[in-house]
Amino acid sequence: MLTLYYAPNTCALASHLALEFAGAEYALERVDFASRAQRSEAYLRINPTGRVPALATPQGVLTETPALLLYVAQCHPAAGLAPLEDPFLLARVQSFNSYLASTVHVAHAHRFRGERWADEPAAIEAMKQKVPANMQACFRLIEDSLLAGPWVLGERFCISDLYLYTISEWLEADGVDIRDFPRDNALRERLRADPRVQRVRAAEA
Amino acid sequence: MLTLYYAPNTCALASHLALEFAGAEYALERVDFASRAQRSEAYLRINPTGRVPALATPQGVLTETPALLLYVAQCHPAAGLAPLEDPFLLARVQSFNSYLASTVHVAHAHRFRGERWADEPAAIEAMKQKVPANMQACFRLIEDSLLAGPWVLGERFCISDLYLYTISEWLEADGVDIRDFPRDNALRERLRADPRVQRVRAAEA
Repeated sequence: MLTLYYAPNTCALASHLALEFAGAEYALERVDFASRAQRSEAYLRINPTGRVPALATPQGVLTETPALLLYVAQCHPAAGLAPLEDPFLLARVQSFNSYLASTVHVAHAHRFRGERWADEPAAIEAMKQKVPANMQACFRLIEDSLLAGPWVLGERFCISDLYLYTISEWLEADGVDIRDFPRDNALRERLRADPRVQRVRAAEA
Repeated sequence: MLTLYYAPNTCALASHLALEFAGAEYALERVDFASRAQRSEAYLRINPTGRVPALATPQGVLTETPALLLYVAQCHPAAGLAPLEDPFLLARVQSFNSYLASTVHVAHAHRFRGERWADEPAAIEAMKQKVPANMQACFRLIEDSLLAGPWVLGERFCISDLYLYTISEWLEADGVDIRDFPRDNALRERLRADPRVQRVRAAEA
């Protein structure tokens, strides 16, 4: 049995979706960010980075979205969520997911996690100001160079689509108009209409 | 044939080391950061993110260190650079590599890439000031929770060790004394003494 530690409106949604699309058996454990439960001693024993997602497995805890997505895909090969048979295509999936984790999510995080990287309130405010332009630039690059369409890999659906969908749901709040990116907008609309996505979002709400 | 696009003193070293440890056939292409060649039209056609590393393969270009490391390990299974046979252990490798890429490298990058996240010189300076404390905190977490010793996974060497080594070489310049982290220091010393590491560093110098 797998247990996903998550908080609503975080990147943990991508792993939650992967579990649902994989047809996995899993339990959910909500981490209450309002009471800073992610920094509690109990949670730090589960995930010492104090973040979500974390996935408790029979062998131990895993963290970091790109790792969880690949793990869920590997443990449920029949669901076809990653091109496990092709090292090059799998590496393209990993390239894309790593770009989302290391560049796009980081660009977004400067909107309300600025205290990670500076102490002065003026510096934290300056970071916030740049978030819309940075997210716009990231999604311009995704739209023009990384998202083949209709899915990230082209005709083949995979875990990268669930991760891109998750971050695309943040765009309006980050000051970006998704209509500037028709392929990404179409991908988000298709997934919003998917009953599995609706089920997962209802469970997190 | 594989071609690695790299620049000295960057995270591209990890992929370069993986190629060498895998016994791969590869060519090197240096990207001249001094003339901002990473933003040239020619290079942006190779890697639209304008960064290193990029790995040109017969099937296309791959980017992002965690993806390159896994790809090199998968294409050279005899070298034993990743626990490909065990999805859980492989996910632990991916968790660790993703933490380095999304948190540790990002913490480091605020020292001289601050203009990515804010425009005001005072904000960029404020980010620089926080780099030593952030890198210290990241390596405290690695030392206490993630690095089993003597290697990241314990007795078994893998691509994560090459990536951790690469970032550990930045610590002094980031204002961190590696002697605070005896396991990481020992790992760095062992790899510094390895003739393959010495060969790769000489090729980049």
